[in-house]
Amino acid sequence: MDSMTLIAIASILAAGLTTGIGCIGPALGEGWAVSTALRSLAQQPDASATITRTLFVGLAMIESTAIYCFVVSMILIFANPFWNYFIAQTTGQ
Amino acid sequence: MDSMTLIAIASILAAGLTTGIGCIGPALGEGWAVSTALRSLAQQPDASATITRTLFVGLAMIESTAIYCFVVSMILIFANPFWNYFIAQTTGQ
Amino acid sequence: MDSMTLIAIASILAAGLTTGIGCIGPALGEGWAVSTALRSLAQQPDASATITRTLFVGLAMIESTAIYCFVVSMILIFANPFWNYFIAQTTGQ
Amino acid sequence: MDSMTLIAIASILAAGLTTGIGCIGPALGEGWAVSTALRSLAQQPDASATITRTLFVGLAMIESTAIYCFVVSMILIFANPFWNYFIAQTTGQ
Amino acid sequence: MDSMTLIAIASILAAGLTTGIGCIGPALGEGWAVSTALRSLAQQPDASATITRTLFVGLAMIESTAIYCFVVSMILIFANPFWNYFIAQTTGQ
Amino acid sequence: MDSMTLIAIASILAAGLTTGIGCIGPALGEGWAVSTALRSLAQQPDASATITRTLFVGLAMIESTAIYCFVVSMILIFANPFWNYFIAQTTGQ
Amino acid sequence: MDSMTLIAIASILAAGLTTGIGCIGPALGEGWAVSTALRSLAQQPDASATITRTLFVGLAMIESTAIYCFVVSMILIFANPFWNYFIAQTTGQ
Amino acid sequence: MDSMTLIAIASILAAGLTTGIGCIGPALGEGWAVSTALRSLAQQPDASATITRTLFVGLAMIESTAIYCFVVSMILIFANPFWNYFIAQTTGQ
Amino acid sequence: MDSMTLIAIASILAAGLTTGIGCIGPALGEGWAVSTALRSLAQQPDASATITRTLFVGLAMIESTAIYCFVVSMILIFANPFWNYFIAQTTGQ
Amino acid sequence: MDSMTLIAIASILAAGLTTGIGCIGPALGEGWAVSTALRSLAQQPDASATITRTLFVGLAMIESTAIYCFVVSMILIFANPFWNYFIAQTTGQ
Amino acid sequence: MDSMTLIAIASILAAGLTTGIGCIGPALGEGWAVSTALRSLAQQPDASATITRTLFVGLAMIESTAIYCFVVSMILIFANPFWNYFIAQTTGQ
Amino acid sequence: MDSMTLIAIASILAAGLTTGIGCIGPALGEGWAVSTALRSLAQQPDASATITRTLFVGLAMIESTAIYCFVVSMILIFANPFWNYFIAQTTGQ
Amino acid sequence: MDSMTLIAIASILAAGLTTGIGCIGPALGEGWAVSTALRSLAQQPDASATITRTLFVGLAMIESTAIYCFVVSMILIFANPFWNYFIAQTTGQ
Amino acid sequence: MDSMTLIAIASILAAGLTTGIGCIGPALGEGWAVSTALRSLAQQPDASATITRTLFVGLAMIESTAIYCFVVSMILIFANPFWNYFIAQTTGQ
Repeated sequence: MDSMTLIAIASILAAGLTTGIGCIGPALGEGWAVSTALRSLAQQPDASATITRTLFVGLAMIESTAIYCFVVSMILIFANPFWNYFIAQTTGQ
Repeated sequence: MDSMTLIAIASILAAGLTTGIGCIGPALGEGWAVSTALRSLAQQPDASATITRTLFVGLAMIESTAIYCFVVSMILIFANPFWNYFIAQTTGQ
Repeated sequence: MDSMTLIAIASILAAGLTTGIGCIGPALGEGWAVSTALRSLAQQPDASATITRTLFVGLAMIESTAIYCFVVSMILIFANPFWNYFIAQTTGQ
Repeated sequence: MDSMTLIAIASILAAGLTTGIGCIGPALGEGWAVSTALRSLAQQPDASATITRTLFVGLAMIESTAIYCFVVSMILIFANPFWNYFIAQTTGQ
Repeated sequence: MDSMTLIAIASILAAGLTTGIGCIGPALGEGWAVSTALRSLAQQPDASATITRTLFVGLAMIESTAIYCFVVSMILIFANPFWNYFIAQTTGQ
Repeated sequence: MDSMTLIAIASILAAGLTTGIGCIGPALGEGWAVSTALRSLAQQPDASATITRTLFVGLAMIESTAIYCFVVSMILIFANPFWNYFIAQTTGQ
Repeated sequence: MDSMTLIAIASILAAGLTTGIGCIGPALGEGWAVSTALRSLAQQPDASATITRTLFVGLAMIESTAIYCFVVSMILIFANPFWNYFIAQTTGQ
Repeated sequence: MDSMTLIAIASILAAGLTTGIGCIGPALGEGWAVSTALRSLAQQPDASATITRTLFVGLAMIESTAIYCFVVSMILIFANPFWNYFIAQTTGQ
Repeated sequence: MDSMTLIAIASILAAGLTTGIGCIGPALGEGWAVSTALRSLAQQPDASATITRTLFVGLAMIESTAIYCFVVSMILIFANPFWNYFIAQTTGQ
Repeated sequence: MDSMTLIAIASILAAGLTTGIGCIGPALGEGWAVSTALRSLAQQPDASATITRTLFVGLAMIESTAIYCFVVSMILIFANPFWNYFIAQTTGQ
Repeated sequence: MDSMTLIAIASILAAGLTTGIGCIGPALGEGWAVSTALRSLAQQPDASATITRTLFVGLAMIESTAIYCFVVSMILIFANPFWNYFIAQTTGQ
Repeated sequence: MDSMTLIAIASILAAGLTTGIGCIGPALGEGWAVSTALRSLAQQPDASATITRTLFVGLAMIESTAIYCFVVSMILIFANPFWNYFIAQTTGQ
Repeated sequence: MDSMTLIAIASILAAGLTTGIGCIGPALGEGWAVSTALRSLAQQPDASATITRTLFVGLAMIESTAIYCFVVSMILIFANPFWNYFIAQTTGQ
Repeated sequence: MDSMTLIAIASILAAGLTTGIGCIGPALGEGWAVSTALRSLAQQPDASATITRTLFVGLAMIESTAIYCFVVSMILIFANPFWNYFIAQTTGQ
């Protein structure tokens, strides 16, 4: 097992688990937010504009944490500095 | 155990677990959202248009986190850069 | 333990666990959705058409996450690119 | 430990765990659905036809996730492509 | 440790755990369903026929997931194709 | 460690854990069912006959999942086909 | 480590864990049942005879799952067929 | 590590864990029962005799599961048949 | 690592864990019981004598499960028959 | 690694974990008890004497389980009979 | 496995898990905050300005904990002092 | 790895985990107590003196369990008898 | 694996996990606090000044626990005394 | 791996985990306390002085458990007696 194989394995596992675990929270949080938005709309249809606007800002904030996880996964797969370093080492030799 | 076997095993396991774990959250979140939508519709049938529209936007947001997981799995299976690198190495030799 | 055996073992385990774990969330989510649909129908029988239609769209969305898991399992069992690569290697030799 | 033994062990364990874990969710989800159906029937006996029909569609959807798990288990036991490949290898030699 | 011993051990452990884990969900789900049936009967004794019939259909659906687990266990103990293959191998030799 | 010892150890552990884990669910489920039966009896003493009958059918259904686990344990201890096979092997030699 | 030692260790551990884990569920279930019985008695002292009789039948059902676990433990300690087999082997030799 | 040491270690660990784990359930169950008894007494002081009697029967039932665990622990420590067998072996030699 | 060291280590770990784990349940159970007693006293100060007496009997029952754990720990530390046996062996030699 | 080192390590770990784990339950239980005491005082300031007295008795009971854990830890650190035995062995030699 | 490979693997795994685990809390917390904001808006549309402003400050505070995790991940990937030290060592040699 | 290193490692890990785990319970318990105190004060400002006094006694009791953990940690770090014994051994030699 | 590599790996993993785990609590706690602040503002808009001020003090207290974790992570990455000691050793040699 | 490296690794991991785990409880506890304070202020703005004062005392008590964890971490990093002992050993030699 040379270095590159090990780096690749660690990157693959970390990328998968980061997205997998990191999407549980945002999905549940958005589920709650949407759920309350619907209940509020049914209760107070007149405030529909304010509720919808606040909902979208809130969803964007919650989605941002899912996007952090997705970004870290993408960095680990496609722009991994450790992998690039070892590629450079191998190529340069 | 050569490098390619190990990369393949890591990719298979990570792809499976990412989708498996990552679908628990969205499914529960969508369950809540749909559940409240139905309760709201029963409570305020007149707001049906607004509720349905908000529900679909919300479901799309929640579904997006499930899709992140599915995308990472597909990348790991079909467009894995680490696998491609080693294939290129093997072929080029 | 040659490469093909290891790939096969990893695929079998990942396929099983992906479907097994990934079905917990959708089943619970659909249970909630159906459960509220029934309560809403009992509470507001007149809105039956809207409730039923929204329920089916919602169930389809939730079922989709279970289907992602099932698809990943089927890909790992019947269209596994890593397995195919090694088969090709073995046959081509 | 030759390849066939290992494949067989992995298939047995994966088949068992897939069904075992994968039946927790559907059973709970159906329990909720049936439970609310009964409460709704007691509350609104007149809507009995609609409630029963919706309940059966819902149960079918939830049961489908349990069936995915059962199907994966059966595939792993009786139509396992990896096992068949190695049988073919052994026979063909 | 020859192949047959290992297959036997894996089958025994998988059969036990499948039934053990897989019975938690159905038991809880049926508990909820029966529990609500009783509450509904006390609340609306006139709907007793409908409630009882729906309860039995629901219990049958939930029980089916427990039966899947039991069936997989029985297959692994008494009709295990992997075990039969190795028996045939041993006998045929 | 010969084959028979290993089979015996696996059978003992699996038998114990199957019953141990598998009794948690039924016990809780029956606890809920009995608990609601008592509350319903206190609330509607006139429906006592229907409630009691439904309770007993429900308890029988829930108990059946505990009995599946117990049966699997007994099979693994007293009618284990794998153990019998090896006994036959040893005796026949 | 000869066979008898290993069988003894497995039996001891399995016997302990079976009773230990298996008593959590019944104890909680009986706690719920007794708890509701008391609340029902306080609410409807006139139905005391029916409530008490139903409670005892229910407690007997729940206790039965604890007894399954205890029976399995006792079998593993005092009537273990695997242990008896090896004793017979040792004595007969 | 001879046989007797291993049997002793397994017995000590199993005895400790059986009592430790097995007392969680009964303690919680009794806590619920006592807790409801007190609430019922405050609500219906006239039914005090019936409530107290039912509470004691219930506590005895719940305590019995804790006593099963304690009995198994005591058997494993002071009347362990496996330990006695090896003592007899050692002495008899 | 001779026998006595191993027995001592197992006894120390089992004694610690038995008391540590086994005190979680009783503490929570007593917390519930005391908590309801206080609420009942505030609600029905006239029933103070009955409530206090029932509380003390209940606390004694719950405390008994904690005492089982403590007794097992003390036996394992100060009256361990396995340890005494090996001491006797060492001394007698 | 001689015997004394191992005994010391086991004692240190067991002492730490016993107190650490064993303090979770009492702290939560006392939190509930104090919490209800305050709510009862606010609801029925006249019963203040009875409530306070019952609270202190209850806290003492709950604290006792924490003290069992602390006592076991102190015994394992400062009055460990196994450690003393080996010290005596070492000194006496 | 030289030092650089190990540092790289540890950094990759820690970066992934930090973001993955650390995003569960903020997502749920923001979900609650947004959810209550929507309910409050529906209940008191006049306080919309205050509610929105407080919501944004609160979301910023909660998001900050997610950002701590993201920052630590980025430091571990792109500005890792340990990695830099070893690069400097390798280059300087 | 000599004895002193191992004792030091065990002490460091046990000291850290004891305080870390042992502070979860008291913090939650105090949170509940303070939380109810504030609700009671808002509900019954006149009973402020009694509530505050009872709160402080209760917090002291709960804090005591956290202090047990802290004391055990401090003993393990600064007054560890096992460490002192080995220091004495080393010095005395 | 020399000392510096190991220190670096431990520091990286500990830094990541400390921030990752330690941010779950504060995020949830702040979510509750903000959530109640919004509900209180909607309920009592006149007390807006007091509520906002108390909220900010409370958020600062909760945030402080997240900052402890972040500080420990930063110390472990950038001001690690153990790492500095070994650097000094290496440089000084 | 010499002693100093091992002590350093254990200290780093213990310091990180102690703060990481130990901050979950206080953060949640303070979240509850602040949350109730806000609800109480909205409900009874006149008792604002008493509520605020009690809140701050309570937060200080809860924060103290977080500070215990932080103190233990700081001691393990900057004033570790075991580390100092080995430094003294190394220097003195």
